[in-house]
Amino acid sequence: MRDLTTTSVTEAVLTQMGQTPDPRLKQVMGSLVRHLHDFARDVNLTPDEWLQAIGFLTQVGQTCTPTRQEFILLSDILGISALVNLLHDKTAVEIGTESSLLGPFYQQDAPALALGDSIAAHSAGPELLVYGQVTDKSGKPLAHASVQVWQTDADGAYDVQKFDGTQMDMRGNFACDADGRFHFRTLRPLGYSIPLDGPVGTLVRAQGRHGCRPAHIHFLIGAEGYRELVTALYLGDDKYVDSDTVFGVSTPLVITPRDVDPDAPVKGLPSVRYDFRLGIAAGGETGRVGADPAQILAKV
Amino acid sequence: MRDLTTTSVTEAVLTQMGQTPDPRLKQVMGSLVRHLHDFARDVNLTPDEWLQAIGFLTQVGQTCTPTRQEFILLSDILGISALVNLLHDKTAVEIGTESSLLGPFYQQDAPALALGDSIAAHSAGPELLVYGQVTDKSGKPLAHASVQVWQTDADGAYDVQKFDGTQMDMRGNFACDADGRFHFRTLRPLGYSIPLDGPVGTLVRAQGRHGCRPAHIHFLIGAEGYRELVTALYLGDDKYVDSDTVFGVSTPLVITPRDVDPDAPVKGLPSVRYDFRLGIAAGGETGRVGADPAQILAKV
Repeated sequence: MRDLTTTSVTEAVLTQMGQTPDPRLKQVMGSLVRHLHDFARDVNLTPDEWLQAIGFLTQVGQTCTPTRQEFILLSDILGISALVNLLHDKTAVEIGTESSLLGPFYQQDAPALALGDSIAAHSAGPELLVYGQVTDKSGKPLAHASVQVWQTDADGAYDVQKFDGTQMDMRGNFACDADGRFHFRTLRPLGYSIPLDGPVGTLVRAQGRHGCRPAHIHFLIGAEGYRELVTALYLGDDKYVDSDTVFGVSTPLVITPRDVDPDAPVKGLPSVRYDFRLGIAAGGETGRVGADPAQILAKV
Repeated sequence: MRDLTTTSVTEAVLTQMGQTPDPRLKQVMGSLVRHLHDFARDVNLTPDEWLQAIGFLTQVGQTCTPTRQEFILLSDILGISALVNLLHDKTAVEIGTESSLLGPFYQQDAPALALGDSIAAHSAGPELLVYGQVTDKSGKPLAHASVQVWQTDADGAYDVQKFDGTQMDMRGNFACDADGRFHFRTLRPLGYSIPLDGPVGTLVRAQGRHGCRPAHIHFLIGAEGYRELVTALYLGDDKYVDSDTVFGVSTPLVITPRDVDPDAPVKGLPSVRYDFRLGIAAGGETGRVGADPAQILAKV
């Protein structure tokens, strides 16, 4: 392992990692080293650029807090979260409703609410009713399915951004009824710029990107024996619905609230009906592309 | 930018980054996205693994301090630092002495010492004399060339590890004489394990690697009009000289101290003579693969 060249150094690294006991770790790290070395050779990465990358990654790590996950944000804007999500979907035995990104603003321990409650605890704005049914792929209702919801307020801010983690808002956990039905009140979310005050924002600006996400409502839906669904519904009249900076939108997830809906369980509010179908996970398929930032930091 | 697949998501990201004003940033980030997406597809990266990577990178960032640079350490053990160093060498108009890694323990503002001084201010152990001459490639002496030196103590620890940044030791800046000659006293360095108490150490252990570097002395050598030389001399009898965990050794940099050397400027000590040749940098070629951790953090 001496007198290495710009090509042989890669083999030297792979040789030294060749005794990795866990075969999957060996495979993943081997592939990562090959691709990262190819990248450095392809662009002829300079010491100045390498040092800029070291400083950038250090800053990304030091920006993470129990309420902010800058590395997830970085993964999101590079399309890596969307890609891993799509790869994950391919492993399912049966796919349900289209998935989307969990994003960096998910929080565990959101309040349990009763059907019909509003998730707006500390915010005001134009109200919206969301209702629907959770079923399997064939349309069979899934009794008491769990529906977690979170979104921005009417100004486009998440609670963790407004209150710095001191209180939750615009979040709730619901249990569907025996027919798999749910309904809740919320505020019409506003699209927003991802946080631009950190290193990821600096990168996004340097790339000439608008850095915006279209208005959306996040959902995490589960029922015993079915594949957990991480998704979101996107408002179709948002100007960024076709240029989401984190690549989360798909056509079946685009919604348009109706001003009058005779089927709505609550009258007098604009409403959205959306029925979610849960798929079937393959054996051993676990995990989701995202986590509560506090949980990630707790392991550090 | 809707209804993306595991392949089309890459093009969507490149399209969104397509307006990057700086052509080099566009090129580097475009290549990085392609290679990272290829990596995720090649190994079919799972959500659990992705989340483990997010947690790992967060921890690497949060381990960085003004005296510790865990991201440089990560780059080092993946061979990326060695590769960028080798790519950098290729840009030189004229190559001098072989280069090696700056590593994560370089500190700016090491004390200026007089020729013949010892760099051991707060440590004891078997002494060593190091002397030589700094020349251009043809052997022409470079008067008053600067020679920065740093190394572990005789127990294999750097000052920043022993004293946590409160005092410097085993470092010095020397100015050569009018003939480009230098000599200084030091302790015989000991090989060492890279820091294993952080996330990078956890990875290295999980890879079944010894995590050790052979004993060495770092040098940073400069003279007006010549290419800065970042290198190190490695003790040939170290058991890890052929399996350096950061891929820094090359044959011409391996030394063997002599117990008796009639040419040594100081008698009665084991000594090493090494003459360094400085090359010529191409116009615009700047930077080095490394930096003082405090300088990196200061930009955060």
